[in-house]
Amino acid sequence: MGKVICIGLGPGDPELMSVKAHRLLTGAQHVAFFRKPGRRGQARTIVDGIMAETAVEHAMEYPVTTEIHFSDPEYNRLLSAFYDDWADRLTDLSQTEDVIVLCEGDPFFYGSFMHLHSRLQGRAEVEIVPGITGMSGCWTATGHPITWGDDVLTVLMATLDEEELTTRAANTDALVVMKIGRNLDKLKRALTKAGRLQDAWLVEKGTMAGQTVQKLTEVPAEVPYFSIAIVHGQGRRP
Amino acid sequence: MGKVICIGLGPGDPELMSVKAHRLLTGAQHVAFFRKPGRRGQARTIVDGIMAETAVEHAMEYPVTTEIHFSDPEYNRLLSAFYDDWADRLTDLSQTEDVIVLCEGDPFFYGSFMHLHSRLQGRAEVEIVPGITGMSGCWTATGHPITWGDDVLTVLMATLDEEELTTRAANTDALVVMKIGRNLDKLKRALTKAGRLQDAWLVEKGTMAGQTVQKLTEVPAEVPYFSIAIVHGQGRRP
Repeated sequence: MGKVICIGLGPGDPELMSVKAHRLLTGAQHVAFFRKPGRRGQARTIVDGIMAETAVEHAMEYPVTTEIHFSDPEYNRLLSAFYDDWADRLTDLSQTEDVIVLCEGDPFFYGSFMHLHSRLQGRAEVEIVPGITGMSGCWTATGHPITWGDDVLTVLMATLDEEELTTRAANTDALVVMKIGRNLDKLKRALTKAGRLQDAWLVEKGTMAGQTVQKLTEVPAEVPYFSIAIVHGQGRRP
Repeated sequence: MGKVICIGLGPGDPELMSVKAHRLLTGAQHVAFFRKPGRRGQARTIVDGIMAETAVEHAMEYPVTTEIHFSDPEYNRLLSAFYDDWADRLTDLSQTEDVIVLCEGDPFFYGSFMHLHSRLQGRAEVEIVPGITGMSGCWTATGHPITWGDDVLTVLMATLDEEELTTRAANTDALVVMKIGRNLDKLKRALTKAGRLQDAWLVEKGTMAGQTVQKLTEVPAEVPYFSIAIVHGQGRRP
């Protein structure tokens, strides 16, 4: 009887995965990971040279990512069937062997594995190994602490509507915004109205080769979906 | 010429520190860490058996923690002098050798090292290694994801006043509350008024020996300062 073990890989630098994640990878018999069809996959790339060479790889290829909007019922139907299918396959595999599932960042923090986790309940033994979040990697890259003293931290997805982004950005000390990509212009307008644009940073590829850290006002018109915006708290400090 | 390198140790389980933190510890010549006088210190305990036996230990003992309220000017004066003194000492040491500074969790996320970091600017070369936050360890311990889809996450310190805690707890999807300790009753009243008490969990000693995960309604009258309350988001999921 095996287990499904989802390991957080951290923000991207392979040395920032946990000692536990590293140990599990080097002894892995089966390794599963999400990716877009036609790509190698960021998670798979992070574990290059770390996971056992003898491990069987299971690429879980998303049927859709951003080609259909998530409000379209077809998006939901396709992804739901995809997660159902992989939950079945991982359940079968785990009857006899451990399966390691890779997850960028921290699995329980906006991670795709959560959709398998809920489908595996009562069918397979599941373990989660937390990881350093992408946002921790990004605020560390800015060289300034994100929160001090009693600061309130708000984490927002840029997919929210402009009014909600504006209100929430105005009403917090420290701010992290994820899933930016094509929502960049909306985010800039919201931060401007909230009076936070001048204090905002944008980090792309945090902790990885090609990392960039810029003031958000200086960012060009297009940024990747996985870039993260940061406004630092300025709270109490002795 | 050396560096001051602050390493995040993660939530408490020594295997959850990063591979990088582990590598730096095993080769360390000088290791500095915060603690209360008369205690061994949680950070020092985590690295037991990992840090080099030959390393010189520098215990940075807080002159005050919760004996004086942080609004008292004396609290500020004592801590400020303490951080000034250790910034001087670390600057001197780093002229010739690397100094590793231990930090529970993630250094730039409400960490004490930030107060040294600001004082070391322009005087010593400083590097930060991010870590898994205590809150990641705690939400993983609950067995349920913290955030889904477009969920808004708010992180609050229980030291805030009851009205602010109430408003913010009512106005978020997912919630994390830290620094609880003697603020437990106030937090319970705020969550009750916000309609979130029944969905709240309390995790003590997350990822460590003696970890407990309870519904907040079932928690006894006293909890440690470093316990963390969690209300999970319930957002979009295919």
